[in-house]
Amino acid sequence: MLTPGISKQTLRRLPFYLSYLKSLRKDMPDFISATAIADALKLNQVQVRKDLAFVSSSGRPKVGYRTQDLISEIESFLGYNETDNAIIVGAGRLGKALMNYEGFKEYGLNILAAFDTNADLVNTEGSDKPIMPMNKLRDFCVGLKIRIGIITVPSEYAQDVCDALVGSGVLAIWNFAPVHLRVPEYIIVQNENMASSLAVLSNHLNQKLSDKNILKVG
Amino acid sequence: MLTPGISKQTLRRLPFYLSYLKSLRKDMPDFISATAIADALKLNQVQVRKDLAFVSSSGRPKVGYRTQDLISEIESFLGYNETDNAIIVGAGRLGKALMNYEGFKEYGLNILAAFDTNADLVNTEGSDKPIMPMNKLRDFCVGLKIRIGIITVPSEYAQDVCDALVGSGVLAIWNFAPVHLRVPEYIIVQNENMASSLAVLSNHLNQKLSDKNILKVG
Repeated sequence: MLTPGISKQTLRRLPFYLSYLKSLRKDMPDFISATAIADALKLNQVQVRKDLAFVSSSGRPKVGYRTQDLISEIESFLGYNETDNAIIVGAGRLGKALMNYEGFKEYGLNILAAFDTNADLVNTEGSDKPIMPMNKLRDFCVGLKIRIGIITVPSEYAQDVCDALVGSGVLAIWNFAPVHLRVPEYIIVQNENMASSLAVLSNHLNQKLSDKNILKVG
Repeated sequence: MLTPGISKQTLRRLPFYLSYLKSLRKDMPDFISATAIADALKLNQVQVRKDLAFVSSSGRPKVGYRTQDLISEIESFLGYNETDNAIIVGAGRLGKALMNYEGFKEYGLNILAAFDTNADLVNTEGSDKPIMPMNKLRDFCVGLKIRIGIITVPSEYAQDVCDALVGSGVLAIWNFAPVHLRVPEYIIVQNENMASSLAVLSNHLNQKLSDKNILKVG
């Protein structure tokens, strides 16, 4: 469940607006309208206006929003000022890359630790965050009230890991395994599927390159 | 443009089917039906049947597909047996994490090098792949016929980088910057927006936790 009335699509667009506003830097106008933002991002202005109405009530007709206020309001709405603690299950290549990626802190995400069944990975060097065995998962999550779990295990283990996370009090799951997870109604799952993105890119390429060959032959 | 008649959604689902089939391992049946795959992944069986028709013509009524053949056919369709070379622009935290992530090789993606305007990052240690200055981008891409460009620069530079990639012969762009990129019609852009995913997860959490507080107070 999300903020009443707000759609996933609106939530997904808010970081785009924020990113655009912050990119203005020294050219930042004191006031900015939904129309100006829509034009810059090639989006529908009615949509932008509706989206911004969820995060700010300070917009004024013909004047727009005070730009700095709007930035603060979006950041506050997205929870960038508070920190959500998270854990990762699966300390393979992707799990380690995400665990050590410092950029999430800007978005209020703090990854505390990773968990793995592979004893060889537990407490390996190369990271200042602990990698712990799976049998410590529940106590860790319950004790520290962890609400976000990130799944980076191979597909065939993802559902079991998901069940373990739900059983440990996690409410939001960020799933990097290319599988559909079954969860209770009160849990949200956000799928991040790089293989799917690559499938789209690669198919486009093959198509384009075969078009070229046809042109050459013909 | 994609394979004629195939949708982005179908392409995005194919890696899920492949992942599921491979996960069967020693329990893998000799034959598998679209219905069995649909049931396992909680998808619509008509949709699965249509999707698989793009990659295989070997399915037989009441018998299904020879499982090993279907795996090979999907892998071949997705181009996992061939390698697409790619470059990354933006050698910050995310760029470096992606550059050094070995998992992409399974999907036929080979990242050859990264480019950055920041001279301090050029040819730094910690990676066996080169980080080169931006003024080498065009020659590198043209010389090696690079068709995939990955953008991991801050939002405000993403459009300029995108234009430079298009000007260097790149046909497919994987964009990790939270901005809408303007490209010619023959270029495909796939957006990967982690900030958007986190916005959805975080909002769900805040909502859930405030529900709890209301319950406690009431």
